[in-house]
Amino acid sequence: MEDRLKKQMDFIMEADKMKNIGRQTYIADGSRKENDAEHSWSLALMCMLMAEHANSEINLLRTMQMVLVHDLVEIDAGDTYAYDTEGNATKREREIAAAQRIFHILPQDQTELLWELWNEFEEGETAEAKFANTLDKVQPLTLNHKTGGISWKEHDIRAEQVIKRNRKTPEGSRTLWEYCQKIIDENIENGNLK
Amino acid sequence: MEDRLKKQMDFIMEADKMKNIGRQTYIADGSRKENDAEHSWSLALMCMLMAEHANSEINLLRTMQMVLVHDLVEIDAGDTYAYDTEGNATKREREIAAAQRIFHILPQDQTELLWELWNEFEEGETAEAKFANTLDKVQPLTLNHKTGGISWKEHDIRAEQVIKRNRKTPEGSRTLWEYCQKIIDENIENGNLK
Repeated sequence: MEDRLKKQMDFIMEADKMKNIGRQTYIADGSRKENDAEHSWSLALMCMLMAEHANSEINLLRTMQMVLVHDLVEIDAGDTYAYDTEGNATKREREIAAAQRIFHILPQDQTELLWELWNEFEEGETAEAKFANTLDKVQPLTLNHKTGGISWKEHDIRAEQVIKRNRKTPEGSRTLWEYCQKIIDENIENGNLK
Repeated sequence: MEDRLKKQMDFIMEADKMKNIGRQTYIADGSRKENDAEHSWSLALMCMLMAEHANSEINLLRTMQMVLVHDLVEIDAGDTYAYDTEGNATKREREIAAAQRIFHILPQDQTELLWELWNEFEEGETAEAKFANTLDKVQPLTLNHKTGGISWKEHDIRAEQVIKRNRKTPEGSRTLWEYCQKIIDENIENGNLK
C-alpha cells in the first residue's frame, strides 16, 4: 500500500506541471491565457452539469475522468494550438512518448486506466469520448466568444477554420453544437471572426 | 432546453472566476501561488486515483463532484487562509451569501444539487465528505512539502497549527494521514515548520 501511495503522490506532483502548460484561449475576464489544469477543471464542471445534452446517455464518472486526464500528455508534448498545421503533424507521436513516461509513474493498474481513458478520448468512438471531445471544443469557443475573440484575432483565425475544427462537435451533442453555431454566426457578424 | 443551457453556460462563465481566486499554497515548482480552479482539478485527480485509501468505501462520482464545486463560494467570499483567525470567524456567513448568489444561476434542480454537495462537504459527516475534506487538507500539505515550506514560512506557521488544522484528516483516510504525519515530522526536522 505504501508503495502504491508513493507512486500516486509522485504522479500528482508530476501532474501539477499542467498548471504551467499554457493554452491559447483567454480566461473569461480576458486578463490572461488559461492553463491546462484550469481548462481540465472547466471541462469536468461542464461535464457534470451538461451531460443531459449528450446525444446518447453517457457514463458520467467515466466521462469526467476522461476530461480530467485528457491533456496530461501536454506536460511533455506541450499544447499544440488547434490551428497550428505543422505542430499538429507531429502531435500524435510526441503525445504517445509523453503518455509512455507520465502514465507509467502510477501503479500498473492505474497506468492502464490512464492509457484506456486517453486512447478512448483520442479515438472518439464511444458516447463518452464523443461528449468529452465536444466539451473540449465548446469550452474554448465560449471563452473566445466571451472575450471578444481575442485569441482568434491574435492568430488571424477565419470562421471556416473554426467550423472545420468543429466538424465532429455535433457527434457528442447536437444541442451544444447548435449553441456554438449561434456563437460563430454572431462573431462573424461582429467581425471577431473573418 | 434552451433556457436550461443558457443558465448552465452563464454559470460556467461565472465559475471561470475561480481561475482568479488565489490561494496561499504554491504550485509544485514554487514559481507562484495556485488558484482555486487548479486546486479543484488537483483534488479531483487525487480523488480518482486515491479513493482506495479512503477509510470507508466511497461513491467516487459524488466525491469528485464535491471536490470540483467545494470552493465555488470563494468567488464572492474569497479564499480564507487556513490560519487566518479573524477571517475564519466570518467565513461561514460570507460563504452562505455567496452560495445563494452563485448556485442560483443554475436551473433549479442543479441549484439544489450544488447546495447538497456543498453542505455535505461542509458538514463532513458522510464517507464521501470525510474523504473530500481529507484530500482538501492533504493536497496543500504535499505542495508545501514539495516547495520547501515557502507558504508556511511566509506566514510563520508552527507545526502545532498544522496538526490542529488536520485533526479531522484521519477521518477520511488513516493511510493519507500517516503519509502526512511523516511529511510534518520531516519538515519539523529540517526547520520548515517550527
